[in-house]
Amino acid sequence: MALLSVLTPVLAVVLCLVLGYMLLKPRETETTARKTEGASKSKNFRPWVDQDLQDDTENTAREGGKKDDDWVDSNEEEDCPHVPYSPTRYPVDTMLQRSEDFYALLNQRRSLRFISPEPVPREVIDNVIRTAGTAPSGAHTEPWTFVVVSDLEMKHQIRQIVEAEEEVNYRQRMGDKWVNDLAKISTNWIKEYLDVAPYLVLIFKQTYGILPNGKKKTHYYNEISVSISCGILLAALQNVGLVTVTSTPLNCGPQLRVLLKRPTNEKLLMLLPVGYPASDATVPNLKRKPLDDIIVHI
Amino acid sequence: MALLSVLTPVLAVVLCLVLGYMLLKPRETETTARKTEGASKSKNFRPWVDQDLQDDTENTAREGGKKDDDWVDSNEEEDCPHVPYSPTRYPVDTMLQRSEDFYALLNQRRSLRFISPEPVPREVIDNVIRTAGTAPSGAHTEPWTFVVVSDLEMKHQIRQIVEAEEEVNYRQRMGDKWVNDLAKISTNWIKEYLDVAPYLVLIFKQTYGILPNGKKKTHYYNEISVSISCGILLAALQNVGLVTVTSTPLNCGPQLRVLLKRPTNEKLLMLLPVGYPASDATVPNLKRKPLDDIIVHI
Repeated sequence: MALLSVLTPVLAVVLCLVLGYMLLKPRETETTARKTEGASKSKNFRPWVDQDLQDDTENTAREGGKKDDDWVDSNEEEDCPHVPYSPTRYPVDTMLQRSEDFYALLNQRRSLRFISPEPVPREVIDNVIRTAGTAPSGAHTEPWTFVVVSDLEMKHQIRQIVEAEEEVNYRQRMGDKWVNDLAKISTNWIKEYLDVAPYLVLIFKQTYGILPNGKKKTHYYNEISVSISCGILLAALQNVGLVTVTSTPLNCGPQLRVLLKRPTNEKLLMLLPVGYPASDATVPNLKRKPLDDIIVHI
Repeated sequence: MALLSVLTPVLAVVLCLVLGYMLLKPRETETTARKTEGASKSKNFRPWVDQDLQDDTENTAREGGKKDDDWVDSNEEEDCPHVPYSPTRYPVDTMLQRSEDFYALLNQRRSLRFISPEPVPREVIDNVIRTAGTAPSGAHTEPWTFVVVSDLEMKHQIRQIVEAEEEVNYRQRMGDKWVNDLAKISTNWIKEYLDVAPYLVLIFKQTYGILPNGKKKTHYYNEISVSISCGILLAALQNVGLVTVTSTPLNCGPQLRVLLKRPTNEKLLMLLPVGYPASDATVPNLKRKPLDDIIVHI
């Protein structure tokens, strides 16, 4: 009995240590998980952020920064011989006219959900993608992949994935309003154009590359680079009279990546249905900000 | 003594609880700090990431997600009447020719550090910015401000800020190689074009807007939207024969924002020096990836 009474505090301490360990362990696991896979945790408080966009944030955080702020890897540049550069020079009158014409062309561009099923020559699409590929990129990494889907069955599978996720998004978002507003809301997750448009262009950003020695090579500013490339792609589409609607499918990135057999370093940034406008196409009567609202001269 | 031997396990338990609390408390504080102020922590391990880009990541994390994946605020759209839309339609031959011509034009674009001091008509710059303003944006927020600097003194102040930060970056980055390589490296942070170019275009993303009731309105996908707009801006510059170099000044965002008197919801995304190419301009002899390396047809 005396032995027991001596041992009791020891037992109590052991018990406390075991309890303490059990309490601490899940926290540590959680901390580690947060460090290495922050994306999964943050789902809790930013449910509407695309998983793939989050992934990139994590990559940036882990792999640090970049090399040079004007997007030229100076080491590469030192190794690479320079050549003279003398692009076309226009007289001032011509310049001014060209700037007006290009503005007039692009000012007609609108995001359009009503796309005609008429076929579009594949060569035109190829040239549009070629043009997008002329965009600048951090350290000339050209971190983009353009997946052009014309296969009917594949388009339909893409539509099913996108609509399923959209439905979840709308249900969560609308909460109680849901039942009353069903008819009106449902139109928002139906994306018929994903079946109808002759092409779906899925634009992936390559978050890193693989060096010859098998190591990862960070693609600095890959999301900004690919977005710039998308801007040029939109201009190229408008230039040939094709239309699209800029979309960033919510939470579908990983599923679509797997469906399209893209490697894990690629993350879906945008999905653009491309075609001629439908003959009965309409657009919301939105206006653009006047120049004075977006420019400041100093 | 018997009382003491009864109390010992209780004391041991209390001691363990106190110790456990002390162990747990800093962890919880750390966890909270990570949740609410991740940016300050992450500065430690991503020194090369621009502060302003980080700011945005934080905003995204805190303010949650977005409303609709195809960048149209459906509520706004429901309120906004639709109008017919029938843009120019080109015959197939014309389409193909236009797609080739536009590719040929943009394929001549190169990032250029050698910019001529010759004046450029301000109307041309205005039209280029107007064109950039036709970009699509999440929920039609048009979250961009283009600050066009032609004032000599202001350009010089911008140069001083950018070069000072660049020097810090290069010194940190080079570490021990520094002393030996001084002459070679120093050329990397000298940015003469910031004085020479007739215009510096500083592109700010508006991370949120202010509603009439004074509340903040999140600008979903503001960075992607503004980057798309930059892509269109680069196409518009190339279209008139002007050149630039795409740059994202490291850690200068806040200083430049204050210098240019922009509000706190605006974050610097890019700085583009704009002008004619210098007569002796050269570019590194880099090639672009062939089409087959960037396109996948399915």
